[in-house]
Amino acid sequence: MNRKLRMGMVGGGQGAFIGAVHRAGAAIDGIIELVCGALSSTEEKAKASGRALFLPEDRTYGSYEEMFKAEAALPADQRMDFVSIVTPNNAHFGPTMMALEHGFHVMIDKPLAFTLDEARQIAAKVKETGLLLGVTYTYAAYPMVKQARHMFQSGVFGKMRKVYVEYPQGWLSSLLEATGNQQAAWRTDPARNGAAGGIGDIGTHAANLAEYISGHRISHVCADINITVPGRKLDDDGNLLLRFDNDARGVLMVSQVAAGDENPLKIRVYGEKGGIEWEQQEPNTLIVKWLDRPAEIYRAGGNHGYLSEIALANCRTPAGHPEGYFSAFANIYRNFAQTLSKRMAGETPSEIDLDFPDAEEGVRGLAFIDTVLASAKSDQKWTAHM
Amino acid sequence: MNRKLRMGMVGGGQGAFIGAVHRAGAAIDGIIELVCGALSSTEEKAKASGRALFLPEDRTYGSYEEMFKAEAALPADQRMDFVSIVTPNNAHFGPTMMALEHGFHVMIDKPLAFTLDEARQIAAKVKETGLLLGVTYTYAAYPMVKQARHMFQSGVFGKMRKVYVEYPQGWLSSLLEATGNQQAAWRTDPARNGAAGGIGDIGTHAANLAEYISGHRISHVCADINITVPGRKLDDDGNLLLRFDNDARGVLMVSQVAAGDENPLKIRVYGEKGGIEWEQQEPNTLIVKWLDRPAEIYRAGGNHGYLSEIALANCRTPAGHPEGYFSAFANIYRNFAQTLSKRMAGETPSEIDLDFPDAEEGVRGLAFIDTVLASAKSDQKWTAHM
Amino acid sequence: MNRKLRMGMVGGGQGAFIGAVHRAGAAIDGIIELVCGALSSTEEKAKASGRALFLPEDRTYGSYEEMFKAEAALPADQRMDFVSIVTPNNAHFGPTMMALEHGFHVMIDKPLAFTLDEARQIAAKVKETGLLLGVTYTYAAYPMVKQARHMFQSGVFGKMRKVYVEYPQGWLSSLLEATGNQQAAWRTDPARNGAAGGIGDIGTHAANLAEYISGHRISHVCADINITVPGRKLDDDGNLLLRFDNDARGVLMVSQVAAGDENPLKIRVYGEKGGIEWEQQEPNTLIVKWLDRPAEIYRAGGNHGYLSEIALANCRTPAGHPEGYFSAFANIYRNFAQTLSKRMAGETPSEIDLDFPDAEEGVRGLAFIDTVLASAKSDQKWTAHM
Amino acid sequence: MNRKLRMGMVGGGQGAFIGAVHRAGAAIDGIIELVCGALSSTEEKAKASGRALFLPEDRTYGSYEEMFKAEAALPADQRMDFVSIVTPNNAHFGPTMMALEHGFHVMIDKPLAFTLDEARQIAAKVKETGLLLGVTYTYAAYPMVKQARHMFQSGVFGKMRKVYVEYPQGWLSSLLEATGNQQAAWRTDPARNGAAGGIGDIGTHAANLAEYISGHRISHVCADINITVPGRKLDDDGNLLLRFDNDARGVLMVSQVAAGDENPLKIRVYGEKGGIEWEQQEPNTLIVKWLDRPAEIYRAGGNHGYLSEIALANCRTPAGHPEGYFSAFANIYRNFAQTLSKRMAGETPSEIDLDFPDAEEGVRGLAFIDTVLASAKSDQKWTAHM
Repeated sequence: MNRKLRMGMVGGGQGAFIGAVHRAGAAIDGIIELVCGALSSTEEKAKASGRALFLPEDRTYGSYEEMFKAEAALPADQRMDFVSIVTPNNAHFGPTMMALEHGFHVMIDKPLAFTLDEARQIAAKVKETGLLLGVTYTYAAYPMVKQARHMFQSGVFGKMRKVYVEYPQGWLSSLLEATGNQQAAWRTDPARNGAAGGIGDIGTHAANLAEYISGHRISHVCADINITVPGRKLDDDGNLLLRFDNDARGVLMVSQVAAGDENPLKIRVYGEKGGIEWEQQEPNTLIVKWLDRPAEIYRAGGNHGYLSEIALANCRTPAGHPEGYFSAFANIYRNFAQTLSKRMAGETPSEIDLDFPDAEEGVRGLAFIDTVLASAKSDQKWTAHM
Repeated sequence: MNRKLRMGMVGGGQGAFIGAVHRAGAAIDGIIELVCGALSSTEEKAKASGRALFLPEDRTYGSYEEMFKAEAALPADQRMDFVSIVTPNNAHFGPTMMALEHGFHVMIDKPLAFTLDEARQIAAKVKETGLLLGVTYTYAAYPMVKQARHMFQSGVFGKMRKVYVEYPQGWLSSLLEATGNQQAAWRTDPARNGAAGGIGDIGTHAANLAEYISGHRISHVCADINITVPGRKLDDDGNLLLRFDNDARGVLMVSQVAAGDENPLKIRVYGEKGGIEWEQQEPNTLIVKWLDRPAEIYRAGGNHGYLSEIALANCRTPAGHPEGYFSAFANIYRNFAQTLSKRMAGETPSEIDLDFPDAEEGVRGLAFIDTVLASAKSDQKWTAHM
Repeated sequence: MNRKLRMGMVGGGQGAFIGAVHRAGAAIDGIIELVCGALSSTEEKAKASGRALFLPEDRTYGSYEEMFKAEAALPADQRMDFVSIVTPNNAHFGPTMMALEHGFHVMIDKPLAFTLDEARQIAAKVKETGLLLGVTYTYAAYPMVKQARHMFQSGVFGKMRKVYVEYPQGWLSSLLEATGNQQAAWRTDPARNGAAGGIGDIGTHAANLAEYISGHRISHVCADINITVPGRKLDDDGNLLLRFDNDARGVLMVSQVAAGDENPLKIRVYGEKGGIEWEQQEPNTLIVKWLDRPAEIYRAGGNHGYLSEIALANCRTPAGHPEGYFSAFANIYRNFAQTLSKRMAGETPSEIDLDFPDAEEGVRGLAFIDTVLASAKSDQKWTAHM
Repeated sequence: MNRKLRMGMVGGGQGAFIGAVHRAGAAIDGIIELVCGALSSTEEKAKASGRALFLPEDRTYGSYEEMFKAEAALPADQRMDFVSIVTPNNAHFGPTMMALEHGFHVMIDKPLAFTLDEARQIAAKVKETGLLLGVTYTYAAYPMVKQARHMFQSGVFGKMRKVYVEYPQGWLSSLLEATGNQQAAWRTDPARNGAAGGIGDIGTHAANLAEYISGHRISHVCADINITVPGRKLDDDGNLLLRFDNDARGVLMVSQVAAGDENPLKIRVYGEKGGIEWEQQEPNTLIVKWLDRPAEIYRAGGNHGYLSEIALANCRTPAGHPEGYFSAFANIYRNFAQTLSKRMAGETPSEIDLDFPDAEEGVRGLAFIDTVLASAKSDQKWTAHM
């Protein structure tokens, strides 16, 4: 490609947190430019948000419908290439389907959709159109997570036996949604967040990470899901026993009432000969344990010759210059963009290019919610997962 | 008391690990002396072990039966005051009952007995005789654990909501019991270790710690218990969902196949306003988390005015001079000895003196094993715990 | 401003590490766009680098002289606003002076110049022209560093007494410059790196951080500077005793031969009542120590109400979503850009806008090198610093 | 030996901290018994302290002179074998010399004496009498320190290049000695503590550790020694540049006014190919760094086959069961006792038995104080060390 990829955005207007993160992630490598947006569901706010981002007025749209139509009508050398969708969960399906129908590739903030049925429709549309769709399961995008996956795949640990994955947050320890906090309000509202609370919001990240690193799929769950804070409408705490497709066992813990915890998503996976430990708050370190010798401290860093090719491809700095949340988003956008550019140029993307979460992973996330909610209602210990 | 307490020992002969730890714990404060022993079930080894400990020959007994009879026949000013029982699990009941019947107080290595029925008999005998019995649930004896319990009891965290307790070890990741390793051989042998493997050996420690700190009892469990290593006879891995008597939820994880892990028993307990985090491998640090302000690093140290009275009473050094496993044993022995000395002197022990695990906790440990094994066999999600 | 600021770049062509970091930092907030460049000293590479960055061909210049002349001749609504200079140390002076003379504001990678004399000329030119100049002393741009500075300034720790600052790297433990490693080659070459090696490259960062947080200036140094690896031409290791202008004492340690260390720049500053500890590799955590109560763990995060206004202004994510090296650069660029935008709009920048390293700090960095080298040659213990 | 070694004690009466630690260290292995004591300089307190330790009244002496005479007159099968001297620094010389003159072996709390001259007299007397003398440089007694020393001696790191050793405490941040605190009072009193404050109290530990691990001697120092708290009589803060006998460089930092720090003695030593990092507050972990591969986490534990023989010999528990300060003392006492027992039995002690600090190290500690104080007064950068 001899030009930047042109990105549009749906959602992410003023005050929205995740939209800004997507834009930062897309900007870091200098290969994507934001050219248009339908940044808010209210036209006035959409316009103001467009001005704040210095978008041209004629490409600051009042609605996504308007945007897709207008952009599709532009000459090919001006039209946006793909759209980034960062609306609340209940507003994922509409713009995603319409984007695909108008020929635009899609990057969408997790979850892929509001319901499993919607997710499946989207996945079918992706297949039908042959367009590219990425979903920001961010945490799997860190280089040390990729190193961990690589090590399990390479067999150095032997058979995978055990997974502990935990995601305790504390920010919903009180009835924050009753205080005017907007973030809390939509995250705890079934009409906007979906049928699940914490399980959907963060539990799906934990499940995705467990499957990504271990290379195995969760086959059964036994879920204890609860509403801890009186007056809340969605689950804010959940504990799950897991079985994997190779009969390995695991535990998945999620909480939004772990008072004092920020965002310490952590995973440990064990094989016969050793295992790994990784924590999102210090993402550049991977502890590698061995049965008969000292544990090792693997560290992110483009100059670390001992890292796997796929881990190195997702490092931007030399060792000791910490990369964080923005870099994880940048990795997803960069891999997505490289895949897209190569396809547009008639080239074949590499395995490293293709290493970003796709519609299938998005469907699996929604299915996980359904399985967990079914298990939560059941008196039986185990519920099968798709 | 104007003399040291006189201790006998059953088990703990040459090569035994835990016997040496008990002796070190008993020795640290200089208030207990070892005066006699029936240190091995084979007379020759018993004699050799007695010599290695510099015991007088006439108080190095060939069996515990011999010891209790002979000691009971000694004049009161020579006779041992209490016995420390450090035999394998299947050899706890006999010496304990006989000691109590001969008027000797008892300190016994965890578990209290081989079965719940035995444990209940012992507890009844303790009640009947009015003698003192202590059980070494070691981990609750660290000062920072006592500080954690104190904080939950004092109400600073509000209602207790959530417990994560985990005890992953890796030493049984391979079929070590087939290689001649004695420690592995008896720990994985139902005839010597009991009906449970890892759940009994370390899971009961985790459960005890959870109840001690939180101040609440586990009311229900949902257990997934497994044998991971082919050829093994007892569980080496288990994951449990927990409910507590105040409806708080929790997870208890146990493993002996967490390859590369040593002994990182760790617990997190959360209340409405904050919570605690403690890890046995760095026992002098307690992380205290708060909903709206920075987490704090509480540290053991006799000079830390911010610690509770009961925590300070279990510190022996100024801050920064690390205490460890021996000190935890010493705390149990010291508190037990102070209680015993005061009772012998007709005084009333303080709450601090009485802070050591007793027969009731011992019974509860065996009951936990039974509940977990019942749950493991059940298809139902929840099994009630006594 | 109703538009992005327009940035040009000198240096930073293909393969250059720090140029890419500057571009990422400038891009993250979406308020700066790269419009032109003189990206390499060889014209062919400059052109190729421009294409790789998707710059228009007519604004991909073959030399910085060409760029400044051409850009100055452009209409005001197209012309670049400021230039980012990311050339090797020995090529800082020329483009910086010329930029200032042509009316362009400047952001320059540390060090400000090759010699103290050059640095002073630049500072004088900045004063004379009234233009804005920023220098990327990156590490002071982390929010937790700003929190630390704020706490010392606010007086909560009492008088500042002691500084330990250390910057041990291990990458030059062998004669890497003899192996074809380009980064090592110029960093150890007096003709390109300057009179100092490690002291200039990383020691100046450490000194800057010490003065920024403590709020006091180094007044005297006692330096032991060495070449450890045989065959090397510049210092790769140095230890310094420090005195500050308030008579506080300190130590500054620098090494490039601390085998196995990556980039763990760390600082501890103590006052009468407490102090702080911060480490660049985990930049989102600040340990705050107190004389009579538990240490606290301050954490970056836009939602942490306990942080100071200036720390919060330099956080982009909620707590637990780690920010790193790119964010630190982004903070410098964002603050610089806000100051510039406000000035261009006739507004007054706030203290938060103005919080980026300027020419004076740049001069001080070069002076530090001179003082240290003088001390290193002296048999006397103390050498005064300007 | 077919009996415990018999120990007497000078000092260590009620309320004394270090005496209790010595007794605990001596008791842990069950091979030493306390048989007599001159526990305080006031007879009444000496008697009360003897009773509290359950010593027989006739072996609770009113003075050390009385004790040595009386014990020397006892039959060989009752007489104490060695004496542990735990008096304040200014009261080391008298009892030590008299003990040696009466044929008793000596274990003495660091420092060996009050002045270098005294120390040399003691060392000469040790040589003359052929008796055994140990000094409790405690920190070198941890197993992971021994592992570190072993690795440097084995050559795996290549030439030793660099040492950072630091010992920051905060307990004297205010004028505590004016508040009635006894510990502070004698530690800051030249008449009782000696010519140096923090340098003598903790700086000598740091120097000892640096030499023990690196296997090299400090040859020159450049010292900046200060009194920070107004009204104090002895140094409470010091920074030193170091040179070693192989031309390696180093830094030694000591403080008693590092507000909020407890006792984090820490050392890093680097060679050509890697190095080590160890911190006393978490003594069971040793970080081993390598130039070209991940750092490793070595851990104490009798079951860790990767540890050296000398490290294993100083571990008492399996991995993950933390040993601490008492174990370090126990190692010194155990090694001393094994050496003594073997000598008494006409056997040859092994290298492992002999691994405890002796009179020569004691002399070196006092010499270090003198060198540092000389350097502190000098305007010259470097002062040679013996």
